[in-house]
Amino acid sequence: MISLSELQRRIDSGDLSGDAAIAQSLQAIDALDKTIGAFVCRAENVRSSGKGPLRGIAVGIKDIIDTADLPTEMGSKIYRGWRPRADAPVVMMLKQAGASIVGKTATTAFASRDPAATLNPRNPDHTPGGSSSGSAAAVAAGMIPLALGTQTGGSVIRPASFCGVAAIKPSFRLLPTVGVKCFSWTLDTVGLFAAGVNDLARALSAVTNRPELLPGAAIEKPRIGVVTQDFAGAPEAASSEALRVAADTAARAGASVRAIALPELLAEAWQAHETVQEFEAHQALAWEYLTQYEAMPSLLRAKLDETKGILPAEYDEARRSANRGRKALGRIFEEVDMLLTFSAPGVAPKGLASTGDTRFNKLWTLMGVPCVNVPATIATGGLPVGVQVIARFGNDAGALAAARFVEEALARK
Amino acid sequence: MISLSELQRRIDSGDLSGDAAIAQSLQAIDALDKTIGAFVCRAENVRSSGKGPLRGIAVGIKDIIDTADLPTEMGSKIYRGWRPRADAPVVMMLKQAGASIVGKTATTAFASRDPAATLNPRNPDHTPGGSSSGSAAAVAAGMIPLALGTQTGGSVIRPASFCGVAAIKPSFRLLPTVGVKCFSWTLDTVGLFAAGVNDLARALSAVTNRPELLPGAAIEKPRIGVVTQDFAGAPEAASSEALRVAADTAARAGASVRAIALPELLAEAWQAHETVQEFEAHQALAWEYLTQYEAMPSLLRAKLDETKGILPAEYDEARRSANRGRKALGRIFEEVDMLLTFSAPGVAPKGLASTGDTRFNKLWTLMGVPCVNVPATIATGGLPVGVQVIARFGNDAGALAAARFVEEALARK
Repeated sequence: MISLSELQRRIDSGDLSGDAAIAQSLQAIDALDKTIGAFVCRAENVRSSGKGPLRGIAVGIKDIIDTADLPTEMGSKIYRGWRPRADAPVVMMLKQAGASIVGKTATTAFASRDPAATLNPRNPDHTPGGSSSGSAAAVAAGMIPLALGTQTGGSVIRPASFCGVAAIKPSFRLLPTVGVKCFSWTLDTVGLFAAGVNDLARALSAVTNRPELLPGAAIEKPRIGVVTQDFAGAPEAASSEALRVAADTAARAGASVRAIALPELLAEAWQAHETVQEFEAHQALAWEYLTQYEAMPSLLRAKLDETKGILPAEYDEARRSANRGRKALGRIFEEVDMLLTFSAPGVAPKGLASTGDTRFNKLWTLMGVPCVNVPATIATGGLPVGVQVIARFGNDAGALAAARFVEEALARK
Repeated sequence: MISLSELQRRIDSGDLSGDAAIAQSLQAIDALDKTIGAFVCRAENVRSSGKGPLRGIAVGIKDIIDTADLPTEMGSKIYRGWRPRADAPVVMMLKQAGASIVGKTATTAFASRDPAATLNPRNPDHTPGGSSSGSAAAVAAGMIPLALGTQTGGSVIRPASFCGVAAIKPSFRLLPTVGVKCFSWTLDTVGLFAAGVNDLARALSAVTNRPELLPGAAIEKPRIGVVTQDFAGAPEAASSEALRVAADTAARAGASVRAIALPELLAEAWQAHETVQEFEAHQALAWEYLTQYEAMPSLLRAKLDETKGILPAEYDEARRSANRGRKALGRIFEEVDMLLTFSAPGVAPKGLASTGDTRFNKLWTLMGVPCVNVPATIATGGLPVGVQVIARFGNDAGALAAARFVEEALARK
């Protein structure tokens, strides 16, 4: 993979020009993407910006995020060739920080269930996960050092786990979702993929103009709460093992580690996620569902068919449950610095029919808390398994510092 | 003005066909809009839907709200002729309820400060207010029974007061803002204009599919807190008088009325509004401001020039202040059923150079609470003055019931 931090160091020192860094990415895409299929559209004549902390950094943009000079097709034929008027704010933030947009990355249709054609770079017989399939795969394959994705259920953390890359789903609305095709306005969150946790921190700091997110001093003895989210069902052996390894390794590195049973209010909030998501999706995608029914992607359409009876009162109760859950979670973070849990139920499923299951992600999306995937173990078939580091709402710097602690402990193992 | 409730009654009874109701509106637009200038674009071949509670109801859509079959120009030459792919969800909700979209209504550029060309139907020498200028004017002039607007500072309640129509800015996100050009994602709120409070209630209930919003039994003895928002400066005499008349009339009608001094936390939240709005506007409008600078509307551009130094830390503190304000306001609603305050500083300003001042609206937009404008008095020049009825977050039914109490009391006066 391409380390963003390493590129920045070489560019800052004059060892590498921004244009040469971009050219490396373009060559890697030329060489690798014919088999991986991470990009659905490439920019022409890409050059490095002359300034900004992300000069020389080639970025892929998930194709539900508006770009003024590239099509934005939402992974659906309904938007074939569609050209938005404006860049989404988060794309402008990348450009203002000096990054170069090299193309649009494959997404499941409307960032939902219908798979993209992208293959998992770690094992092409398996899905890269979704919905941010192309963004995770492009970073994992070493094509680009940074990519944008989005998460409504588990669409950033899960593909990052399946592809063995670092990723952050920041606190809700730290990155604006304006100009991002909406599925659920209470849940949709823009996230980043990169080779490692420091790379994420540097990119997020540059994009948001928040120096407090830059990598700082390491946490010495974090208080870690390990949660298994029993309400979400049992994980597969590979994820169970990854969590055990990460927790044991963190403990040996000096962390105080203990198991935490999440209160019933959080099990209820976990249940509420789908009601919020599907009720809002019926409104957000009303034009597509009601006027383009035949052209709708089949798995998403079937889900909308199945969920069209949700009443406003059920939605209101689901939102109240989410609010109760947020308060309960806030109390947990008075006792621990971070939570450690599964990033996904197991390794990437075989084949491309399913992008995997969001059941270990959706509670945290609904809570709006920052989540980081840290690659932890490699299972049979060369398939990576990540763990998920979670911090209090608004404490993205803490989530990144905690994830770096886990990442460094695992590297020393 | 055209009463939506009365149209519904006549259509339900078979006294009037949906198509005849639509035709009345189209004829009124033909006759009146040459002088008023409420519409920037008209739909062709408009017919009534065969079913739904809003069949026969002609609706105008503020021209920052996406429509698939009409241009959406944002009041700016940057979007001249722009055609979105999809209808905004709120437009689809109107259509699903049976309403007919008859055209797009004039908006200040990007729903900000640069005025539209619309005249005030009550006195053409005065502004109709903004930013939802065309929507307020079209309802006030009797062209249409219902119009959609949006409010980020005071863009629904203020033009309603200036034009003498009822309007509701519902609880934040009761109506989705997806497909509405974003200025500030924390503040932007879709609202409705109609002839009277019952019309608003019937429309909002139909659009949201929430029967609890339908007009019910009248409140007998509401507990009313009168607030003058001293931190926002003094009102003009006309608004002072309107509030006095409305409060006295409500008291005579049986309400318990008392003055409430808002706590300092709410004065601080009022201050925080601008920081939230302008920080987010710089992100939301980054593409326009940074790539279309010369074509930007001049007043908005000057404001963005002036506010570009707001730091993320200042924005974070403003959001925390808003949260503290929301909690303080929640405590006030344990003691009163509704707040009554100014809708605007006075009558509509003369001329079209300014659409007026948001200082009595912006706190309530930031709080996300439902606000209703009720026309209260007529000042010199035939210019109406409204009062603002406010209820607890999520209690839109209560806001409408309280507004109806005030409206009925004023009608009996």
